[in-house]
Amino acid sequence: MPRETLHIVARAIARAGTESRVREQFEALVEPTRAEPGCLSYELFVHEENPAEFLFVQEYQDEAAFDAHLASAHITAMLEVVLPLLAEPPDIRRYRRLSYSA
Amino acid sequence: MPRETLHIVARAIARAGTESRVREQFEALVEPTRAEPGCLSYELFVHEENPAEFLFVQEYQDEAAFDAHLASAHITAMLEVVLPLLAEPPDIRRYRRLSYSA
Repeated sequence: MPRETLHIVARAIARAGTESRVREQFEALVEPTRAEPGCLSYELFVHEENPAEFLFVQEYQDEAAFDAHLASAHITAMLEVVLPLLAEPPDIRRYRRLSYSA
Repeated sequence: MPRETLHIVARAIARAGTESRVREQFEALVEPTRAEPGCLSYELFVHEENPAEFLFVQEYQDEAAFDAHLASAHITAMLEVVLPLLAEPPDIRRYRRLSYSA
């Protein structure tokens, strides 16, 4: 059995008119988050037909690594700007992987 | 700009009591789907606190590859068993990646 890691999938919907500001803020997270020592994978997506819907697919080494991510300067600065621009609170879910790469 | 691929995120919720049957059906998809020539990535997750909630995070080379996946024998056989066991229709969304690996 491979080591268990933490998988987080977060969806955020920008209010109409704020899509490009939210997108810029989200895109700016990619590089510093990937540089966190406990971050194993961090991908940002936008819905094909809805430019307001963003999805982060993330993997962290363990709970401490995810806590460090949430407490990072890049996340706290982003939240201050972005939270008021969202149409609803972000939907953040935690998963365990059932499929393991061969 | 890297080549655009097709990203699909599918969520399915099993009806109470059918979680393990649904999970077996989903787990059985991983190997044959990864063997499809146009499938670049196929991961299956289960929600940490809800054993009825499953998530597939998928990447295909192009539209034709995704069409071939949907028409495959392993998908059609699975759907016949699983669709009646789901609490609601599966939520299947298409995304473009904004983050590219360095």
